[in-house]
Amino acid sequence: MFPTVFRFRQTSEFLDWFAERNRTHRHRVTPVPLDALDGWASDPETGNLRHRTGKFFTVEGVEIITGRRETRCWTQPIIVQPEAGILGVLVKDFDGVRHFLLQAKMEPGNINVLQMSPTVQATRSNFTRVHQGGAVPYLEYFLAPPRRRVLFDALQSEQGSWFHSKRNRNMIVELPPDEDVPPREGFCWLTLEQIGDLLALDNIVNMDTRTVLSGLPEPWPDDLGGPGAEDRGRHSMTELLSWFTDVKAPQDLHRRRIPLAEVKGWTHTGDRFVHEEGRYFSVIGVDVEADGREVARWSQPMLAPAGRGVIAFLTRWIDGRRHVLVNARTEAGSRDIAEMAPTVQCCPANYDGRPEEERPRFLDTVLSADPSRILFDVVHSEEGGRFHHAENRYLAVEADDGVPLDAGEDHIWMTPGQLGSLLRYSNHVNVEARNLLTCLRFLRQRDR
Amino acid sequence: MFPTVFRFRQTSEFLDWFAERNRTHRHRVTPVPLDALDGWASDPETGNLRHRTGKFFTVEGVEIITGRRETRCWTQPIIVQPEAGILGVLVKDFDGVRHFLLQAKMEPGNINVLQMSPTVQATRSNFTRVHQGGAVPYLEYFLAPPRRRVLFDALQSEQGSWFHSKRNRNMIVELPPDEDVPPREGFCWLTLEQIGDLLALDNIVNMDTRTVLSGLPEPWPDDLGGPGAEDRGRHSMTELLSWFTDVKAPQDLHRRRIPLAEVKGWTHTGDRFVHEEGRYFSVIGVDVEADGREVARWSQPMLAPAGRGVIAFLTRWIDGRRHVLVNARTEAGSRDIAEMAPTVQCCPANYDGRPEEERPRFLDTVLSADPSRILFDVVHSEEGGRFHHAENRYLAVEADDGVPLDAGEDHIWMTPGQLGSLLRYSNHVNVEARNLLTCLRFLRQRDR
Repeated sequence: MFPTVFRFRQTSEFLDWFAERNRTHRHRVTPVPLDALDGWASDPETGNLRHRTGKFFTVEGVEIITGRRETRCWTQPIIVQPEAGILGVLVKDFDGVRHFLLQAKMEPGNINVLQMSPTVQATRSNFTRVHQGGAVPYLEYFLAPPRRRVLFDALQSEQGSWFHSKRNRNMIVELPPDEDVPPREGFCWLTLEQIGDLLALDNIVNMDTRTVLSGLPEPWPDDLGGPGAEDRGRHSMTELLSWFTDVKAPQDLHRRRIPLAEVKGWTHTGDRFVHEEGRYFSVIGVDVEADGREVARWSQPMLAPAGRGVIAFLTRWIDGRRHVLVNARTEAGSRDIAEMAPTVQCCPANYDGRPEEERPRFLDTVLSADPSRILFDVVHSEEGGRFHHAENRYLAVEADDGVPLDAGEDHIWMTPGQLGSLLRYSNHVNVEARNLLTCLRFLRQRDR
Repeated sequence: MFPTVFRFRQTSEFLDWFAERNRTHRHRVTPVPLDALDGWASDPETGNLRHRTGKFFTVEGVEIITGRRETRCWTQPIIVQPEAGILGVLVKDFDGVRHFLLQAKMEPGNINVLQMSPTVQATRSNFTRVHQGGAVPYLEYFLAPPRRRVLFDALQSEQGSWFHSKRNRNMIVELPPDEDVPPREGFCWLTLEQIGDLLALDNIVNMDTRTVLSGLPEPWPDDLGGPGAEDRGRHSMTELLSWFTDVKAPQDLHRRRIPLAEVKGWTHTGDRFVHEEGRYFSVIGVDVEADGREVARWSQPMLAPAGRGVIAFLTRWIDGRRHVLVNARTEAGSRDIAEMAPTVQCCPANYDGRPEEERPRFLDTVLSADPSRILFDVVHSEEGGRFHHAENRYLAVEADDGVPLDAGEDHIWMTPGQLGSLLRYSNHVNVEARNLLTCLRFLRQRDR
């Protein structure tokens, strides 16, 4: 058995515990041709990939027409998962210090073995027991607990390039200090400071934990927010909302779900579904065996990106406050025209060999930044339950004078506190921006 | 010519001006069989009603499956208008008093002749000139004016029972006192106090003006809000958002657009499209001739409700603050599962002869309230550009002790200030609740 340590004096103690778990965790992820994936099949008419139960998710096609992207019209595969699951983090004070209950969890797409996931990370199929597995631990605290205090609770979107309007319920729930939480294998309590330490390391804090923590209402460092911060920035909240309304009002996103077989420029090799030039991503199949999961073995399709992405904020001090440059971004799966995104969010390899004018704005500013201007530069993974080895460089870069204060109609400067305030209201801030905000907030930075 | 009076010392002066305009306004609205409506036709395959240009709007069918209403599954006709128009009110100080520029405007569905509409009330087809009419007056102030200050700007939903995910951009724009606004026939400047007087009268302030004014950020009377009010209520804003997330998370709204010809229980008589029991509404056709509009004559379908509706808040003082009882309501056209609605919102005639348990909750509480408990009770119309004689009783009623503080999972008490704060973020508060909030805010009430 593993030692049942639930709190750590030092981050290094956690790292020992985590290394030990990684060493002893038994699991196997085996690539399998899509055509041979147990329980999954391509619909003979549409080519759509689906599970025999009709549950979990499907891979279908989508056609996009919009004037809001480099390309006006395209088709692509997309994951359709209409259910909203729960991503929930339990919070409790020990000796006056707030701790967060996280789980060292294996996901088949993780590039390493384990990453720290929220207390609960469950699709609706999970917690309504479609797969006949075990109950989801700690789920009861997020359903109708009598003594909890909800600190954050919003429906939040996930990767719009890969998911069709998907969202999950992000929750942070606080228990009173005298409430006993039964210990469970693989879970531990970490402080905010410890999580900040871990965010500086590659691929330890998983996507679901990062998105949930972006909703934590307090405490922000003084320069990043605080009560009443919503109008303290280059623009008032009313101006920011007006900018966002202006982006969305033309409703310039026309989207149609199409059969996967009709997606152009992509091909089903039998093994996998791939882009003909090797760009964007592939859909692959895997068999999974693992302990410590509700189900011990299963098979599933996964989306494997073609390269490592870049998710970056340009930042700048304006009137004594740090600001970040936010982009109103439309993606294939955007639920409502556009969401607020990082300054840059792309996979640079997708633009290899493309004309200069198609390169995403500010990408080269970020990639060529002098090291002295880089606040952080760390690799994190996207959700290992759907995405295979999907890594992104998360960066914050101090902008130089070449980046204007009025950066065009699709970019606007706001404070991290304003962005944090907006994300309470769902449908406003995309997952990449939320996760980058978590890094900006909790990661120990050079200038703090 | 009409006298060019643009401001009024007294509301009675305005009423004289308004009566004179009503008397002299020339217009004619003639019912026409749907089958004979100029420029409009039923698609031979689907039965959908559409204009020959494909613009403006269509009348189609929709099928709803949801556990969130009295009926689990139904089909109905619905107006599909994917464009977001602009509803905009210009604001300017004269002698230190804020004035609002409104227009006395004829709409074909108005039960009287003129109602006071926003400065600009234009569909996108209008202002992109599909119908080749004149330019929209004052539109330039809402597009990209150099000296304006935006006080409010949000995409807001409209009647979810009648429109499929329709929304309009609601804007309030302030000009500096020294900016000269050229006078125009039929427009006048009114103070908030004067608009409050008019809201106490039936059918003078139109729907579009009411919804825009719900976004006015200030001034709230002290008991109705003010800065920092968002957490001052029975529930904090975090709790209210969590309640709303809980309502939406099961995503219990499955909707499919269907051909109008497949809507069950409705029939096309040639003249009109009607419900077989005469409930809900009919789709009728009208020919319109009018002066003072961009186009002098046109034909269009309209939706004519079967009876007068009731739109009501129960209110209650909790901890020294007025609260209203808000309902999370799912409608056929809801863009995102549910929006915050008045305590009661229905057409009582639709429930005639129906079993007791199908009657909307709190309807009888409102209808049987002792007159001493009624804060206001006034009749206003819904949008006369799409709806024919669509009147609703707008009420606020002081609840008695029979209405609990915990009123079930679909109802929650909040302050008007909290509701006003939520409506800044689009997709949160439905048009009926917004319009009722405007009455609650501006109308002179007995207890103030």
